[in-house]
Amino acid sequence: MTNGKQSRRDEFSLIHFLTGQAVSRSSQHPFLEIPVGDDAAVFTIADGMNVVTSCDTMVEHVHFTRQTLTPEDIGYKSLAVNLSDIAAMGGIPRFYLVALAIPQQWGDEELKQIYHGMDELAQTYDVHLIGGDTVATSGPLTITVTVLGEVEKGKAIPRSGARPGDILFVTGHLGASAAGLHLLMNNGGDGFMTSHGEGEVQDEQHPNAPLILSHRRPLPGVEAGRIMLKNGHVHALNDISDGLASEAWEIADASGVTLILEESRIPVLPETVSYARKQQASIREWVCYGGEDYQLLGTVAQSAWPSLEKQMKEAGIALSAIGRVEEGTSAVLWIDQNGRQSPLKAKGYNHFSAKINEN
Amino acid sequence: MTNGKQSRRDEFSLIHFLTGQAVSRSSQHPFLEIPVGDDAAVFTIADGMNVVTSCDTMVEHVHFTRQTLTPEDIGYKSLAVNLSDIAAMGGIPRFYLVALAIPQQWGDEELKQIYHGMDELAQTYDVHLIGGDTVATSGPLTITVTVLGEVEKGKAIPRSGARPGDILFVTGHLGASAAGLHLLMNNGGDGFMTSHGEGEVQDEQHPNAPLILSHRRPLPGVEAGRIMLKNGHVHALNDISDGLASEAWEIADASGVTLILEESRIPVLPETVSYARKQQASIREWVCYGGEDYQLLGTVAQSAWPSLEKQMKEAGIALSAIGRVEEGTSAVLWIDQNGRQSPLKAKGYNHFSAKINEN
Repeated sequence: MTNGKQSRRDEFSLIHFLTGQAVSRSSQHPFLEIPVGDDAAVFTIADGMNVVTSCDTMVEHVHFTRQTLTPEDIGYKSLAVNLSDIAAMGGIPRFYLVALAIPQQWGDEELKQIYHGMDELAQTYDVHLIGGDTVATSGPLTITVTVLGEVEKGKAIPRSGARPGDILFVTGHLGASAAGLHLLMNNGGDGFMTSHGEGEVQDEQHPNAPLILSHRRPLPGVEAGRIMLKNGHVHALNDISDGLASEAWEIADASGVTLILEESRIPVLPETVSYARKQQASIREWVCYGGEDYQLLGTVAQSAWPSLEKQMKEAGIALSAIGRVEEGTSAVLWIDQNGRQSPLKAKGYNHFSAKINEN
Repeated sequence: MTNGKQSRRDEFSLIHFLTGQAVSRSSQHPFLEIPVGDDAAVFTIADGMNVVTSCDTMVEHVHFTRQTLTPEDIGYKSLAVNLSDIAAMGGIPRFYLVALAIPQQWGDEELKQIYHGMDELAQTYDVHLIGGDTVATSGPLTITVTVLGEVEKGKAIPRSGARPGDILFVTGHLGASAAGLHLLMNNGGDGFMTSHGEGEVQDEQHPNAPLILSHRRPLPGVEAGRIMLKNGHVHALNDISDGLASEAWEIADASGVTLILEESRIPVLPETVSYARKQQASIREWVCYGGEDYQLLGTVAQSAWPSLEKQMKEAGIALSAIGRVEEGTSAVLWIDQNGRQSPLKAKGYNHFSAKINEN
């Protein structure tokens, strides 16, 4: 299709080609005045609401490979990481735009799968495709998603609001995405994907399915973010894209406070623990620097902790207090399992950096 | 900088690295509640206004080469084409996000130049950077810009509103961008760029400067779009990114009407005419299929033509009536210089498609 004899796929033709259903769903959206297919989309924001927006790019060989993500996963994850950014502000995602740079070797079937993975998630979160661009590239598949949402005026939760005395919390569990990635890269998924007829299927009963799915299908914490915004006492919030260390440092830096993290209180799946032991790998490394967990890390006034805990429990979302905020210079301190305290290094690492350098 | 030993450039570090001034300008924007540097940006839309948004991607070797655009031009143009989409709705651009996938061989100095080109245009149009992402790629430089703006509720100008009896008009002149591209690709710019100390400078007195600048520095028709929206009788509007033929067809298709274009009335620069003659090239081909003129093509009620013409003249923006809208099936008819009428083919062509296939 990127053959020079055919006209180039522009945003219009691709969106029609890939998205039939999604577009017709979007056209009926009550807030959408002009849907996809014009020079730009036009939509309404409800009274009392602000617009919240973010964009993220995923590049093959940098953020994923064919070994680590299926085409459906690529679509799913490229939208999920953006919904996660909106969640981390306490916002409601509404619309998205997709810019796709497609290498010649990607066929129509795979492109449809990318789109299906994205559309599946879009339906779950009721977000609608309103635009984008589709171009050919001589390089790797590159996908940029921009998400637009709403958030109550003056209520978005920044990363800069942490206050001394706050409790530091995290949703869900950490390190599973890095463990899943390790499994996919070093052990070929260990039988998680199996041949089935002409394609492959995932074995969701596989003992390490929670790890692989944490990496491939992270759940953006939109509902959690909304609960936190409504609680009214969550002062700072970040989603964990680059690892606990990096996100904690961002809050500490932006808020001008010291965060104290207690290793013993950090929630980790039993599957992560058991796989790390087998591999003689460091859980701490995965938790602090692995990244891509897309859980929410935040701080809440101590007095509001019981109400937040209750609200999250009622919603069936795991929440753990993992430390506290203290007055002081911007810093992150780590108290290990043996009670020893040390500064936590901020740096993350890039899983595929070696590969990039080889290219 | 994409060296594996250094931490990867994320949106935060790059934006700080590249944008110092621009970010501090944005932080003071009255509508911006949370600027760049958090998980997402948050901004207000004025009462009575809707949000208008669009995104476009430019890929090296597909949309430009080092021969056709300087790094500053790449930055300028990647934002300009998006502002043009907002202009084509009659909107006011306000904010933008930039996703940049950077190959190893692009150095910091060139990246700064990209940014400077973008920032220069952003200042002219008072649009503010509010987010983005920056990643490494093993492929060509890939830049996606998303622009967000405002437009009065219910007033955005779609491409679907053309009515029989309307006058078909275009702003500025057509074909110059394609002529400029031809000059850059086939004649190395013909002395337009000259060595100067350590770098190169443009010779703005060069006889073909208008052609090259039309290609490198298209002016988005934001002011023109606003005049058209306020006029109240402009029924359909498109920006000319893919050539007159393709855009005329989009209006005809979306509106269910026949457009009649008169070749003799299409505005073309004398430099375009003279360069085409020298090259024995077809002006018609450049006008209809060259694209990237980023002028506005639209239709207006016949009764409102005099007022629109007057308003545009007062603003110093060229406007030409080039045809009319008739009842009928979706079609575009072309009346050539000799008065012969024939259907106008819709297809454009991709300048670099041959190159893509070589990669």
